[in-house]
Formats: sequence, C-alpha cells, structure tokens
Amino acid sequence: MDSSSSKGISFVIYKGSPDRRVVQGTTYRSQLNGDEVLIRITHSSLCGTDEHYLNEDMCLGHEGAGVVQSLGPDVKTLKVGDNVAFGYQRSCCGSCARCLESLEMFCPERGFYGFSETDIGSMASHIVFHESFTYRLPPAISNEAASALMCGGATVFNVLDMFKVKPTERVGIVGMGGLGHLAVQFAAKWGCQVVVFSGTEDKREQAMQLGAAEFYATKDLDHFENVAPIDHLLVSTSMQISWPLYLSIMASPGTIYPLTLSDGDLKIQYMPFLMNGLRIQASIVAPRVIYKRMLNFAAFHGIGATVQLYKLDVAGIEQAMADLREGKTRFKGVLCASE
Amino acid sequence: MDSSSSKGISFVIYKGSPDRRVVQGTTYRSQLNGDEVLIRITHSSLCGTDEHYLNEDMCLGHEGAGVVQSLGPDVKTLKVGDNVAFGYQRSCCGSCARCLESLEMFCPERGFYGFSETDIGSMASHIVFHESFTYRLPPAISNEAASALMCGGATVFNVLDMFKVKPTERVGIVGMGGLGHLAVQFAAKWGCQVVVFSGTEDKREQAMQLGAAEFYATKDLDHFENVAPIDHLLVSTSMQISWPLYLSIMASPGTIYPLTLSDGDLKIQYMPFLMNGLRIQASIVAPRVIYKRMLNFAAFHGIGATVQLYKLDVAGIEQAMADLREGKTRFKGVLCASE
Repeated sequence: MDSSSSKGISFVIYKGSPDRRVVQGTTYRSQLNGDEVLIRITHSSLCGTDEHYLNEDMCLGHEGAGVVQSLGPDVKTLKVGDNVAFGYQRSCCGSCARCLESLEMFCPERGFYGFSETDIGSMASHIVFHESFTYRLPPAISNEAASALMCGGATVFNVLDMFKVKPTERVGIVGMGGLGHLAVQFAAKWGCQVVVFSGTEDKREQAMQLGAAEFYATKDLDHFENVAPIDHLLVSTSMQISWPLYLSIMASPGTIYPLTLSDGDLKIQYMPFLMNGLRIQASIVAPRVIYKRMLNFAAFHGIGATVQLYKLDVAGIEQAMADLREGKTRFKGVLCASE
Repeated sequence: MDSSSSKGISFVIYKGSPDRRVVQGTTYRSQLNGDEVLIRITHSSLCGTDEHYLNEDMCLGHEGAGVVQSLGPDVKTLKVGDNVAFGYQRSCCGSCARCLESLEMFCPERGFYGFSETDIGSMASHIVFHESFTYRLPPAISNEAASALMCGGATVFNVLDMFKVKPTERVGIVGMGGLGHLAVQFAAKWGCQVVVFSGTEDKREQAMQLGAAEFYATKDLDHFENVAPIDHLLVSTSMQISWPLYLSIMASPGTIYPLTLSDGDLKIQYMPFLMNGLRIQASIVAPRVIYKRMLNFAAFHGIGATVQLYKLDVAGIEQAMADLREGKTRFKGVLCASE
C-alpha cells in the first residue's frame, strides 16, 4: 500500500457487527488495477438477504448505483462521470464453459461477489468494481431507479428471459413485496397474463395498477375456485408456501421458481409434481447479458420500483432494515447518499 | 353391439383382481370405428407400475408389440400385417395447445391411456388402438425388442430429446434396472459421458459394456470422491435416493429427473438446490414424435433391452411380476404370445 499515491483513496463503508448493529468503518485503496473502476455511490438498495450479513464484519449491500470517479489503466468502455449501476456479481473467470455461455453467475472459478471480501459493498461512499460487471445506465433510468432494480429486478427478469417465458403464457406471482411488485411489472410488459397471489386484499389495487390481470387473496384458503392454469409460478415470499394449494392450479407442464433463499427443505408432493410434468427451477442471480437487457427493457417500458427513501448512513440503514423486517416497506428501500 | 357382425371379435385379456391374482377374461368388439386398428399382440413388456393395477378389475400392461390384424374405415397409414408397437398413451384431443405443440402426453382433454378403460391393455391376445398412437416398426427392430422399449425406453429417451441434453454433457444414472440399463445405452449413443450409480459392484461390468464411462457403487457411501460434476441426473430407482449425496456432485446449473413414481414427498435441501441453480424436471410419458425418434434411434444404434422372456398367460404374468418384485429380473421382463 502506498499511502502517498496520488490515486489513493479512503472511503467509508457500513458493516455488520457481532451484535447486529450497523457500524461505520473506513477502507483504503492505493490504486486501481487493470479494469477496475472507482464508483462514487449515490444510491444503495436494500434486499432481504442483507439481513443474513448483519452479524458479519463486512460491508453490507449488493445493489447500487453511482457515478464513475476514476478508471484503472485497462478500462475501455466507461468514462469518468458516467452514471452506472452494479449488482450481486462482481467477477467471473471469463473463460470457463459457464462464462462463455453467458451463465457466468455460476462461474465455478470465481464464484459470487461479496461473500469473501470485507470492504466491498453498496452501503458505502465508494466501491471498486470491474468494468465488465458495471452497467452504464440508459438515459431514461435515474440512479435511484436503477439501484432498486439491481437485485430483485434482475432476479425476476432472469426468469422471463433465461427460461424463455412466452408472452402467451400465464405468470403467477406469489407475494407482492420488493420482488413481487417488480415481477408484476416485468411480466405484464413481457405480454403475459399476470396473476397475483397475496395474503390479504390490501394490495389488490396496487397489483392491478402495476399490470396484474387477476388477484387472489390467499389467507385461510384451502382451495382455489376457477383459477385458470398457471404456466410459470414465481414464488417471491420468504416463507414456505402451501404447495398442495399451488400445485393444484399449475398448468401441465408448468414451472415453479422459488426465488428466495430459505433454510430447510423444499418439500413437494411427488404425484401431482410428476403426473403434471412440472419443473422446479432455481433462479437466483442473472448473468451480465440479462442485466443489460433488464435495464433496457425497464427503460423502454418505464418499469420501476415503488421506493421508500432513507439516508445512506448508520441511522438510515438501521431504519430501512427495521422497516423491512417488520413488513412496513412499500415496496423497496433505497438508501441515498447525501451529496 | 352387433354380435353378428362379420368384423366382430372376441379376445382374451389378463386382468388384476381384488386379491391381486391375475385372472383371464374375455372381451368383445363388434367393429372398428374411425381410425381404430386391431392388433394381435405378440409381446407385452412388464413395467414396475403394473404392480399398482394388480388389484383392479382391468386389463394389465401398457407396452407391447404385435401385428396389425384389421383396420377401421378411416385408417390411412397402416396395413394388415404391419409389425407395430404401442405405449402408455392411447389418445389425445389433437387440438389443444399441448397436442399441437407435440406435448400431448399431458393433453388435458383426453388424458392418459389405460386408467379408465377396463378392456384395453398389452397383456391380452389383442388390443384396439388408434392409428395415430400405433408405431410401425423400423425393419431393424423385432417385435420383442420394440415391446421392451415402449415404456422405459421412451421415458429415458424423452429426457435426452425433450429437454435437449447435449452430447458434450455428463449424464448420471441412478440405478441400473429396467429403466437404467436402457438409459445407459441411449445416453452413451447420444454422445454423453455416462456415469452409473448402483448399490453394489455387481452390475459394473454390464454397465461398462452397455456404454458407461464411469461406475460408482453407492451402498454405505456418505460422500463422493473425485466425481466430476453431473449435468443431468436420471433417477431410475423406485426408492428415494440420498439427496445430499447427489446434490453435492451436480453441475451448476444442472437438472435432476425423478423418473419413477413414488408416494410421499419430494424433499430436497433448499440451499444447495438454489445456490447451484439446479432444476428438478418431471418427465414421465413421451409424446408420439419422441416415440418415433426413439424407435429410429434405437434401430440405427442397435440399442435394446436385455430381456427375460415369459409366456403371455396367467402363470407367465404372475412369474414375471414375482421376479420383478423380488429384484430378480435382468433387466426387462417380456411376455411372449405362444402363437
């Protein structure tokens, strides 16, 4: 480390801690190497999985947007001042079969961003990112809007794009939170009949405004009446759903996508699963090519999260996480840098 | 019913009964309608699922081969004397979206063959079948060989064809019985590296002869050493497998196909399933187009079941079922008509 380098920079990061308080720290980079880009963060969004890292001594957050502040020597496509966004994945090997096939979110060589490096995260004043995983924003999308799409937006769009959902199909969405309310918009603009399943009637109007064709309140329901078969079911709730209830309305064949991480087992009745030719498809992180298409699609169709804004500081992060934990967020928490 | 019709025919059927004995009965058809074909059965194969119908008063068997004996007025492509085979599905609506997309095994209008009609089955002297689900045999395949492919062969071939397995991928096969020993052959000729998982070392040599590249005995195993990732795992055992064991060697992304029907739940650990981007794909009955390609592929590559022959009568059926139940069949039971 050369602390006297003219390129050296200290920046603020917000980390977890053993007692689950958010703490402010500082980190330092002497220079940018290769294709690294230094981004001044303007917005960081909040995701349910951030909760899992709150007791770790590492920078929080994996979705954000900002402005390019300086460039490593090999950067070719970005320039200082560009508005950019970034998501969960920070790197891949670039040479394995998975990466070459644009499925690099599963790159066995480099794995995922964020699990091992303690000073990289979107809840910070700055972040150092590789050029090839930094997305220049289409003019029609603000940094605030983009940051709110960089995890959940890509996750739901990945289902439509990677698994080739057809606009003639019916897409069911279980849960209308941060993920679900984006899924409604993307699937509706994709051309599909969108069917929302939510606990109560509370979100019916919002669901229909965002593009849903049908809405069903599911609390205390033990069977559905007159729901036409669902070709693709996106499960965006973090709780286990009642599988027999939903298996009964799946098209055959049809696909179920559990989009959130849960501990424990995925447990599905064998017979209806097999006899209807169903598929259960894991889908968690989109590859770069799909991130880019997602941003362009959102820009073209005016798709965006309904956001709840907080300050990007210790108090703001703690408040945002508390609201999410208590189910108060409508629908996506976004932290904004003050400058 | 016009019992005096010149086309009328009585034929023998072998049925289940409440005390699970096989009983011989007779049924009668006065004439053939539309595109119906009367087939004199030369061979019927035995499948594990026949066991589920042994206590029902209905004709047993859903895979067989024979010779066309007479034709309904609208039959266009078959002629008397043709060698033909038939499988699980007997009909579809021909007009719904599923049927038009060649996925008619899930036709919601007509459903499956065999569940509701008591006098239709392959364990019989004759069967009346629709022309469009009756497959004329390529000359290189005998009736005996064809009958042994009409359920299991189509089931494993369906995975390769419908779900677009690539010859560059590694295919794992759990269990080397009636289904598994066909899967080894089809996947090897498909160009794949075939990896067999079997309880003991007993079947190693046979597996390698049939085209396996690797063989692992799994009894008492709690982890695998040095098994390269499996892209497609065909589970052909009727028992539940140890999911953590197999999840640990799946490629990411990779697909698991549970090919046999089990009661109870499919229960898989959430985290390795989601984090590796896995897919669980139900695949039970192939559509017509895949049946035809399967027969041509088997004829071209000389793929066939290793069969154990029995007489197509009450004693033969009961012996074949007892052998299968006791795990003595190597590898596929085939019942032959005496004439």
